[in-house]
Amino acid sequence: MVAFFAMNWRLNILSVLIAGTITSPMLQSQSSPLVNGDRVMDHLKAMGDIGRDPAGGISRVAYSEADLRAREYVIGLMRTAGLTTHIDSAGNISGRTPGSDPKLPVLIIGSHVDSVPQGGNYDGIVGSLGAIEVAQSLSEAHVTLRHPLEVIIFQNEEGGLKGSRAISGELREEELNQTARSGKTLRDGIAFIGGDPAHLADVRRKSADMFAYLELHIQQGGSLSTEKINIGVVEGIVGNHRWDVTIEGMANHAGTTPMDQRQDALLAGAKFIEAVNREVTAIPGQQVATVGRIQAIPGAYNVVPGRVILGLDVRDLDESRIEMLFDRMHEDADHIARASGTKFSFQEIVADRPALTDPRLRQIISDSAMQLGLTTKVVQSGATHDAMSIGRLAPIGMIFVPSVRGISHAPEEFTQPQDVINGVNVLLRSVIQLDSQTL
Amino acid sequence: MVAFFAMNWRLNILSVLIAGTITSPMLQSQSSPLVNGDRVMDHLKAMGDIGRDPAGGISRVAYSEADLRAREYVIGLMRTAGLTTHIDSAGNISGRTPGSDPKLPVLIIGSHVDSVPQGGNYDGIVGSLGAIEVAQSLSEAHVTLRHPLEVIIFQNEEGGLKGSRAISGELREEELNQTARSGKTLRDGIAFIGGDPAHLADVRRKSADMFAYLELHIQQGGSLSTEKINIGVVEGIVGNHRWDVTIEGMANHAGTTPMDQRQDALLAGAKFIEAVNREVTAIPGQQVATVGRIQAIPGAYNVVPGRVILGLDVRDLDESRIEMLFDRMHEDADHIARASGTKFSFQEIVADRPALTDPRLRQIISDSAMQLGLTTKVVQSGATHDAMSIGRLAPIGMIFVPSVRGISHAPEEFTQPQDVINGVNVLLRSVIQLDSQTL
Repeated sequence: MVAFFAMNWRLNILSVLIAGTITSPMLQSQSSPLVNGDRVMDHLKAMGDIGRDPAGGISRVAYSEADLRAREYVIGLMRTAGLTTHIDSAGNISGRTPGSDPKLPVLIIGSHVDSVPQGGNYDGIVGSLGAIEVAQSLSEAHVTLRHPLEVIIFQNEEGGLKGSRAISGELREEELNQTARSGKTLRDGIAFIGGDPAHLADVRRKSADMFAYLELHIQQGGSLSTEKINIGVVEGIVGNHRWDVTIEGMANHAGTTPMDQRQDALLAGAKFIEAVNREVTAIPGQQVATVGRIQAIPGAYNVVPGRVILGLDVRDLDESRIEMLFDRMHEDADHIARASGTKFSFQEIVADRPALTDPRLRQIISDSAMQLGLTTKVVQSGATHDAMSIGRLAPIGMIFVPSVRGISHAPEEFTQPQDVINGVNVLLRSVIQLDSQTL
Repeated sequence: MVAFFAMNWRLNILSVLIAGTITSPMLQSQSSPLVNGDRVMDHLKAMGDIGRDPAGGISRVAYSEADLRAREYVIGLMRTAGLTTHIDSAGNISGRTPGSDPKLPVLIIGSHVDSVPQGGNYDGIVGSLGAIEVAQSLSEAHVTLRHPLEVIIFQNEEGGLKGSRAISGELREEELNQTARSGKTLRDGIAFIGGDPAHLADVRRKSADMFAYLELHIQQGGSLSTEKINIGVVEGIVGNHRWDVTIEGMANHAGTTPMDQRQDALLAGAKFIEAVNREVTAIPGQQVATVGRIQAIPGAYNVVPGRVILGLDVRDLDESRIEMLFDRMHEDADHIARASGTKFSFQEIVADRPALTDPRLRQIISDSAMQLGLTTKVVQSGATHDAMSIGRLAPIGMIFVPSVRGISHAPEEFTQPQDVINGVNVLLRSVIQLDSQTL
């Protein structure tokens, strides 16, 4: 059956004829619905009023009142889009619509609506509203996918992918005792947003039940923006390992301790920070390493620091390269320790393995963008995303749109309306193409 | 007139015959009273019960209840020693006895009774009780000096030589608004201990009214202790300049910012810490430089630091050498800034010029020690002392006694009783010799 439909093309996007129920890949790639760009932008604007921070930007931290209101808002949009909504035990919001083949696993799209304190209105929001728009556009175009379609709004992405890690089974029971940025414990926070922290295990999903996951997100980094590329086809989300590095020296009076009798933990720490930078830049590649935190104890002008604690963060798309870099940094630390009379110890606090996207999904995203006349570039994601957790279970794909000057997690975060709409259109087209495939 | 007297020599120190009123330098150097070592140790023990901290050591911070009790205790001892006591507007305790020549300026001895939090019972106390003991021993031996003798217990030495800097006129009006470790402002603290902060200017003294200042103190540093030397003859108190160094880079996402696009303020800071160490150790001498404080902003694992504030402390006995070192460090900072796309700024927050002791006073201290059969060594003071302020107005001399393993400002601070008594005896003998001279 073929149906005609007209959308409200206020943004001057061409309407196209589409097949009501698409079965031929050829037909899909030639004619496919487009999303309602004005509607997406209206929803984005409405969302921007939730959690506006008088001090600047958007503060919609997980488990806050603003988070709750944003969740209620997207649940409403999901229902309007014809999705059946449900909050799982971990607090993730799910909106589903059945597919034409009841035996097929679910095709998932989504993102998150929580923000960092004084963040922007695009990180997570573009992908969340974009996914709902895709469902609504499909519904309005009377397109029924073969696979069930599920939109998931993952809870507390910014606090460490808590919601998506519950689905992948990586969220540890003891994390429930952590205090989130809202001030609530994770346990209380999950209950606050309608989850059931006592039954977290129910949330875990099986690979067999999941067909694929696609996420649209702003690029947190400037390459698309500076190179004026429309769409980033994400190659993978880099692995991220973090260590607390403790350096023990000997605290002593800064006036009375001769230079040659010092065991200065901060001087040793400075040499280590330099070594970290030297190792990570010594080899070609996109690997990054950062020391972002440092504490010198006791931390007085007139005391040689006796102890330093610093945070080391290493990322790459290749897990073995992270390990190799860490081994070299550890060796450097051994040398520094011997020369300075200090002692280094390393405690690994994060060990997120890289998540590569599926090459077939990359191809679909790339094809979809090109069919829409958009330029593309293969990029890495240096930031973590819920796709990282879901990638443990299912093939994943990620679509990036430019964020002006790469700014994110800041009030200045901004993506041009046309870039938002382009991204949602690529998501829609990719969903339709993906649905026709067997992975 | 010649008088005989006997002291209570429980510590088996020989009693000696002395001249009641000494006029001949020759006679002084041959026979001089000795102090009552047992009494000094009793007073030291009694003082150690004031401000004992349940968490360890002595907490007798300026303007605390414990400080007040310690002050009351020494005022009592001063009166017993026949001194006329007075609290000046800055809160310094003064105890005076007239000299035989009413035209001569005052000979001052003293130290402080306030401590750092969880400090020891020797820093300041040995010199304070020692000075009172000298007055009492002179009185008991019926020795009247030519010069008036004044014992001063300076208030809030540990908080930045506040009391002695009021006397030298260096205490700035705005410092009265600073919050001291006790939690009181300096203004309230001075009132609390019986001073009159509205009339600070009255405290300032004239050089012409001051003959000389002698201070006994434990060595904060290990050279006398490790080399088993009895008495340190202080060459001078090193100058101490401090700067807050602010490094401005660009905060950015640690995952998405390529290494070659970073302006990492902490990496620049690390290079600067290394440069400081390199410069200070590149030339021979006893100069020291320390970075004891550091703050990276925003200070998150996943953010390239956009700003670093660190504390730089440089000390030497030669002011021009401090300036030369700082110039070199500043040049290094310029190089680092250019190479890293950061910006360094320096704010000088302390600029204490060195205070050299008077060579004639050094000689008297050295002679006195040798006459008592004690070994001596010329040492620098890397720590500041009230003598530093008084040195702006009058010739100063300082006597150091060993502190075991150089430990100070810690509960483990300890000086052997015999070393305490040696120091007080050297102070007494030095006072008598000094009194006979014309500086």
